[in-house]
Amino acid sequence: MTFDPATYCPEHFLWSYRDGIATIRLDRPERKNPLTFASYAELRDTFRALVYVKDVKVVIFAPNEGNFSSGGDVHDIIGPLVRMNMTELMDFTRMTGDLVKAMRGCPQPIIAAVDGISAGAGAIIPMSADMRLGTPDAKTYFLFNRVGLAGCDMGACAILPRIIGQGRATELLMTGRGLGAEEGLNWGYFNMVVSKETLMEEANKLATQIAAGPTFANGMTKNQLNMEWDMSLDTAIEAEAQAQAICMQTKDFERAYNAFVNKEKPVFEGD
Amino acid sequence: MTFDPATYCPEHFLWSYRDGIATIRLDRPERKNPLTFASYAELRDTFRALVYVKDVKVVIFAPNEGNFSSGGDVHDIIGPLVRMNMTELMDFTRMTGDLVKAMRGCPQPIIAAVDGISAGAGAIIPMSADMRLGTPDAKTYFLFNRVGLAGCDMGACAILPRIIGQGRATELLMTGRGLGAEEGLNWGYFNMVVSKETLMEEANKLATQIAAGPTFANGMTKNQLNMEWDMSLDTAIEAEAQAQAICMQTKDFERAYNAFVNKEKPVFEGD
Amino acid sequence: MTFDPATYCPEHFLWSYRDGIATIRLDRPERKNPLTFASYAELRDTFRALVYVKDVKVVIFAPNEGNFSSGGDVHDIIGPLVRMNMTELMDFTRMTGDLVKAMRGCPQPIIAAVDGISAGAGAIIPMSADMRLGTPDAKTYFLFNRVGLAGCDMGACAILPRIIGQGRATELLMTGRGLGAEEGLNWGYFNMVVSKETLMEEANKLATQIAAGPTFANGMTKNQLNMEWDMSLDTAIEAEAQAQAICMQTKDFERAYNAFVNKEKPVFEGD
Repeated sequence: MTFDPATYCPEHFLWSYRDGIATIRLDRPERKNPLTFASYAELRDTFRALVYVKDVKVVIFAPNEGNFSSGGDVHDIIGPLVRMNMTELMDFTRMTGDLVKAMRGCPQPIIAAVDGISAGAGAIIPMSADMRLGTPDAKTYFLFNRVGLAGCDMGACAILPRIIGQGRATELLMTGRGLGAEEGLNWGYFNMVVSKETLMEEANKLATQIAAGPTFANGMTKNQLNMEWDMSLDTAIEAEAQAQAICMQTKDFERAYNAFVNKEKPVFEGD
Repeated sequence: MTFDPATYCPEHFLWSYRDGIATIRLDRPERKNPLTFASYAELRDTFRALVYVKDVKVVIFAPNEGNFSSGGDVHDIIGPLVRMNMTELMDFTRMTGDLVKAMRGCPQPIIAAVDGISAGAGAIIPMSADMRLGTPDAKTYFLFNRVGLAGCDMGACAILPRIIGQGRATELLMTGRGLGAEEGLNWGYFNMVVSKETLMEEANKLATQIAAGPTFANGMTKNQLNMEWDMSLDTAIEAEAQAQAICMQTKDFERAYNAFVNKEKPVFEGD
Repeated sequence: MTFDPATYCPEHFLWSYRDGIATIRLDRPERKNPLTFASYAELRDTFRALVYVKDVKVVIFAPNEGNFSSGGDVHDIIGPLVRMNMTELMDFTRMTGDLVKAMRGCPQPIIAAVDGISAGAGAIIPMSADMRLGTPDAKTYFLFNRVGLAGCDMGACAILPRIIGQGRATELLMTGRGLGAEEGLNWGYFNMVVSKETLMEEANKLATQIAAGPTFANGMTKNQLNMEWDMSLDTAIEAEAQAQAICMQTKDFERAYNAFVNKEKPVFEGD
């Protein structure tokens, strides 16, 4: 599957595209943008397809009318899950995990712009993004244990400790308590906290800067951050020697050098 | 080995139990609660047994008369170690490591409540807990290099960097300098710093909250935090798909759903 | 290769030695101490040789006239790289990676003292050190994507996230933005920020303290920090049981015990 980002029109979430930047928003703001079986699947397929959609250079995952997402809908998702057998449950948990794999697996850096509620799977999505911007109203709940489940949902026990440390992650996952914006900034969960009014402006500014960079090399950075997750130090260093040598044969590297010699700003083209 | 937590009476440390919460304190407060060969072994056996003691839902590892623990006793432990041969030394270092393995291996979340001195093995125990509360007087020393040893004691070179970061952990392990309470809070070593007077109240409040949660799922969270320590990202996500699907077949998950539908607070029973 | 640290005189960087502490500075301060092919290779060989140079107990990697290093020289390095074929590029990226491997592989703790510009490979060197001191003027740029390359250079995608967390590391590597001193301190990148005037004094104070410690055990701490990078928790704990048992057979351990018994300060000799 591939698609034209300018005309792409998903059924179960909102999509917009301009100048290399795709913006995704979950829908149904009157219910704080819950996820459904259908939106999970379509998001998974979209992020998988992004590997081949070269015109998208950065993705912003944005809130909708003041909230990011309330997570899996209680009536549409939790209710059915309670009645499923194990093979059906595995289909569901693998689908949700596949969304995270697809978000990590696409070469585009993903910026989560978080406002209001970000709960359950609606917290996992920002956690799985590459960078996170929040507003003072952003409230993040890894609330799985409050609904009788374990904190190990969609990679949280692996990813959250690497972002905020093992002790803080354990607390959030075992208590389900809310993480505030300021605390999230101090802990390195948020890269930036900005006003509600400027959230999308700041997210777009960051996205524009990254979209203007060397696209192939940025995708390689993301890939190596994933790949080196559990490599030995020496293996990771060799892996980077190979990855960077590949990048040194791109034209973008030559463009940067020529621009420097000519005292110009480099214009990257992504090849 | 299993035991009745209400009547359990260990020989070499203090044990109390109420409402699903076990509280452990090291003894001999006049010497700041040092560890001995006997207390190491009995603690190891107790944490191993906790796997089968379903009535214990959370463990608090608490201080005794203003100090947590001064670590391995100089006369009772260091002196004999200096005279041991290699096979005897390995028996000792494996026993101490087995205590950490047993603390990580039991399903109960462990809350360390730290006041006063927490040094050497007396710092490793809180480090190996799931969460840490401290008082302004808490002073933590990973002091192994001050007694001529390496910082790699009982898992410190693996665990401490994941809690506070590689650079800060290296400094503490290579200098043996004290970590203060405020600094420990800012670094994510402590989850909370509270007054000496309220330490046990706060530890019990947190323990009570967790004990009221879904016990089986909380144990799964802890297990996955251990297991995903060195998994690849994709493997961790698949592991969580399996672990969470298991939790979705517990009655606690159904209880949470029914409570939500009935606008009640869920009462979890741990199965 | 081994050498006498008191008379060692490298061609392509500055070396000084006193009381167990070696100090390295890059040269050409008028160009902010860039790295060259020759200095990379000589640094690599020097750190490799340090494994056998027992008289060096700590290394300080210091700035020169107000700057740490501007990284790979644009004219001397970037220019030639743009014209190289893949086998030549791999020779280069492996040489730079080998410098990091050699810095991590020598038993001596390395303290980076950072002032002014620390950019590109000139940021990787402090990142690969064991501890980092900075001045308020220290400005750190992982700027690879600004020159058309990926952030995965010399181990950055593996090491930087372990020091400052995955989210903050991703931001620095994907934007190339500067990391200030205060921010670096709050994030755990710098262990200490001190005035420009006292930077070398503080670095020497820390180095002197570590040099007075148990040298063999300190090298074991560094080795285990490297080795346990991607071990399972249980494997790491067993590895430490072995490593610490080895250290318990050193004379430094006995010296510490005897000093304690005699109420003296231990004098470590490194064996």
